[in-house]
Amino acid sequence: MNSESGATELAEPNLRAWLTTIGLDVEYVRGAGNTLFMRGDDGAEIPVIDYAGGYGALFFGHNHPVITARARELLDTGAPVLAQFSAHPQASRLVLELNRIIHRELGDTEPYYATFANSGAEAIEAAVKHAELDRVSRLSAVTGELEAATARARSAVLAGEAAVDPGVWQRLGVPRPAGDGDAVADLVAEIARRNAAQTARPPVFLALEGGFHGKLGTSVQLTHNEGYRAPFQALAAGARFVPRERPEVLKDILAEESGTLLGLAVTGGGVRLVERDHHTLCAFLVEPIQGEGGIRPLSEEFARQIQEFSAAAGCPIVVDEIQSGMGRVGRLLASSHLGLRADYYVLAKSLGGGLAKAAVMLVRGSRYRQEFELVHSSTFAKDGFSCPIALTVLELLEADGGRAYTLALERGAALAGMLESVRAAFPDVVKEIRGRGLMLGLEFHDQSGSADPLVRDAVASGTFGYLIAGHLLQAHRIRTFPTASAVSTLRFEPSVLLTDAEIDRLEEALTDVCAILRGRTGKRLAIPAA
Amino acid sequence: MNSESGATELAEPNLRAWLTTIGLDVEYVRGAGNTLFMRGDDGAEIPVIDYAGGYGALFFGHNHPVITARARELLDTGAPVLAQFSAHPQASRLVLELNRIIHRELGDTEPYYATFANSGAEAIEAAVKHAELDRVSRLSAVTGELEAATARARSAVLAGEAAVDPGVWQRLGVPRPAGDGDAVADLVAEIARRNAAQTARPPVFLALEGGFHGKLGTSVQLTHNEGYRAPFQALAAGARFVPRERPEVLKDILAEESGTLLGLAVTGGGVRLVERDHHTLCAFLVEPIQGEGGIRPLSEEFARQIQEFSAAAGCPIVVDEIQSGMGRVGRLLASSHLGLRADYYVLAKSLGGGLAKAAVMLVRGSRYRQEFELVHSSTFAKDGFSCPIALTVLELLEADGGRAYTLALERGAALAGMLESVRAAFPDVVKEIRGRGLMLGLEFHDQSGSADPLVRDAVASGTFGYLIAGHLLQAHRIRTFPTASAVSTLRFEPSVLLTDAEIDRLEEALTDVCAILRGRTGKRLAIPAA
Repeated sequence: MNSESGATELAEPNLRAWLTTIGLDVEYVRGAGNTLFMRGDDGAEIPVIDYAGGYGALFFGHNHPVITARARELLDTGAPVLAQFSAHPQASRLVLELNRIIHRELGDTEPYYATFANSGAEAIEAAVKHAELDRVSRLSAVTGELEAATARARSAVLAGEAAVDPGVWQRLGVPRPAGDGDAVADLVAEIARRNAAQTARPPVFLALEGGFHGKLGTSVQLTHNEGYRAPFQALAAGARFVPRERPEVLKDILAEESGTLLGLAVTGGGVRLVERDHHTLCAFLVEPIQGEGGIRPLSEEFARQIQEFSAAAGCPIVVDEIQSGMGRVGRLLASSHLGLRADYYVLAKSLGGGLAKAAVMLVRGSRYRQEFELVHSSTFAKDGFSCPIALTVLELLEADGGRAYTLALERGAALAGMLESVRAAFPDVVKEIRGRGLMLGLEFHDQSGSADPLVRDAVASGTFGYLIAGHLLQAHRIRTFPTASAVSTLRFEPSVLLTDAEIDRLEEALTDVCAILRGRTGKRLAIPAA
Repeated sequence: MNSESGATELAEPNLRAWLTTIGLDVEYVRGAGNTLFMRGDDGAEIPVIDYAGGYGALFFGHNHPVITARARELLDTGAPVLAQFSAHPQASRLVLELNRIIHRELGDTEPYYATFANSGAEAIEAAVKHAELDRVSRLSAVTGELEAATARARSAVLAGEAAVDPGVWQRLGVPRPAGDGDAVADLVAEIARRNAAQTARPPVFLALEGGFHGKLGTSVQLTHNEGYRAPFQALAAGARFVPRERPEVLKDILAEESGTLLGLAVTGGGVRLVERDHHTLCAFLVEPIQGEGGIRPLSEEFARQIQEFSAAAGCPIVVDEIQSGMGRVGRLLASSHLGLRADYYVLAKSLGGGLAKAAVMLVRGSRYRQEFELVHSSTFAKDGFSCPIALTVLELLEADGGRAYTLALERGAALAGMLESVRAAFPDVVKEIRGRGLMLGLEFHDQSGSADPLVRDAVASGTFGYLIAGHLLQAHRIRTFPTASAVSTLRFEPSVLLTDAEIDRLEEALTDVCAILRGRTGKRLAIPAA
């Protein structure tokens, strides 16, 4: 495979060849606002309206002047970018500012402690590590208590101060020794054996069907898409995937993942069995709006049920706001719309302003374990470039009384209105418009019965949405993609700078696509390989 | 805990409090070359010589003018930073340039394919995922062949064209059925059962004792340091840690991780058992010089033994050049000094020039699986900011006939010479100087018998090296740290710009530290909490 210069391609050549076949292998030379510019054959720049928005990372568009000005200032003043193990006032301020906004949105004042990362997936891994440290520590506290009580009971028996209740032997299936000596030794051994079997059970994560939480070794196991996850399932602990809007499933899962930890205790002169409930659930991962799963908002009702389940089970909730957060749906936290209160929040993408690689994992105070700071770190994270940029992003969000949030909702409503009107015009082609604010999706009806073999083949190979993306780019100079795990849904995640003219351009383009898919015009999709 | 402004600290408050107690909680306001500047009480800048070098990420120092100029140019021209799923000519050029240099260093022309990441740990996770995809694919190819052969053999028996060799029943412990019917059904079921047990065995990674490969969910299990790894061991597949310079251990590990896959085959009129060797080893991770493990170079002899073992076992080698690579020891790849040829190389840290977050995982052509491109990706990776910066870093490395490489060795030799002279002056305090080029370590003798309780306590709590780091900063305005997993070893990883005057300053400082540790001067370490 060759790039345009004729040189060998060693950076994902297979992907690039495929992008070429569907007309997406273009080189962008400049980005500004919602526009990416590619170079035409005559050398002139060709503007492309960017509705993909860096998979949601460009809430303020490409090269926002305030953000690039901040970057220039950092370069001009020689800001120390890498100075690990020192005070990081910019990072500290960033976390305080995030807390201030979160407290406003939640109507609460519990602090959230921060661990920095370099990508959303890294921040998910940090959350998962913290949750596991917490789970094991809690488990260890319970088993420690039980062991101590058991040791006391044993001493009491040996000292002749207490006798084991007869039911205990029976309950544990341990024969009562006839002779003298350490009469509870077998009982204690059986309890230890049973507790060890319980504590050895691997942690289980809960995640929603359609959820996407990254592609690193551990995080990809929390991502529902089987193509991404299954080849690597032997690498990390697994998740149990909960069907959307099916809270009744949670009860069964909890039962299956539960067990009992045992101990002995002295009450009066008797030694009785102590039983403590235990489960292996480590964390419940939720996106307020599933991004790669097809722009699917969680309902308030299901959010409430998840919250109640997690509170009852003592299973922390990790709210993945990587794509939905940072203003995209009119708030810092999309989940705050739902009344969902997280134990962990994960922010990334737009946090870096489309320039820096910034990500942060926040743990609520009541869950936070300070020892995590001594076991987790990253050379690049909490750095002096991404933290000031992220602070600038928060300043932009909060400026003018939070005008960016309002604008996201207002522009989102205008965009959604247009998408709904396209659906109304082509109800046979467009199945549904979903989402909130500037995180919208358009799902097509199943096109496997299309008269066009190009369309049918794309559906069969799971690339239908990319075929449409190729046409939008080639015929209309509009850039978007399907969501990664639901390729019949096109994503629309433009920046807050979205203009009415850009919405009009998209309307024309989608009208064209729908007319072609309807198949009565004789027109075909503009794909190079077609 | 409070920051200087009196505000609450929510960004790792525990760590910050600890940094305060040992005098490391200073704020740096500017970085240039080997110097970080902190702000004094009078507002004036106080220069600190940086020997920590961003944990090895600052081969060209803080804010190298060529690198910051490139960053400014990207900002000025509005370079498209996030434009996923398009042509990425800068990424493509970067990989070609890496290949050109690698080919020169290895004296070979086999291409290495690249997957981009945002940190070294992410790139390790990508390598591990690729190795697992490869392992499972190879395993599946073998079991597929065996199943097909078995099916053919079964058909031949059913057709009366062949008979099962009597030894096969016995070998598998399956009773030979007396009656008619499908006489090989039980045999086939037993073979399937045994093969399933083999293929279900989890992948095992090999890594060296003292090795450090990151702290994400999967990569932390490849990092030897128990404090970092053990709390999270239930999250991901584990590694077997090989003692340094003990190649004989490898044979035993291979035997323990091996098994046999079975099938049937028709030879002449007989059906015989086919046995194929199989092992669970997924990859062998090696640092040419262990960074966090105490700046410990791998010997050429052990490198050769690892290479031979891996070739014989068919277990790919992942050479982690995150800290050692990018010129630090006079080559792009420190491992090329050792004659070690990797299946995977991982580069990060200095690849980003101390400004961008750049990381890349390279897979040799003969191992590369193109399908990996369709299952692995990252929103922030392969971006239009870090790739051009990394290209600039390579240009700096290769400029003037590779003067930076030569300089790294020359400056490293000067620094090592000074460190050796300190050791010679204080053989009772300094145990060993290790490393190569600008990746050097100074190991102290055990100080647990120190007359100073401050020193004794630090040794007991595993923070000895940080105590020394605090003194170096407070008393000498020199910044360095111990290696993370070997805290009696100070790391020296300055930039290639290191001057003789900076070496002299370090000599004075270390002479002071050694004199204090020797304990005959009455002087004590300058630590705020002391």
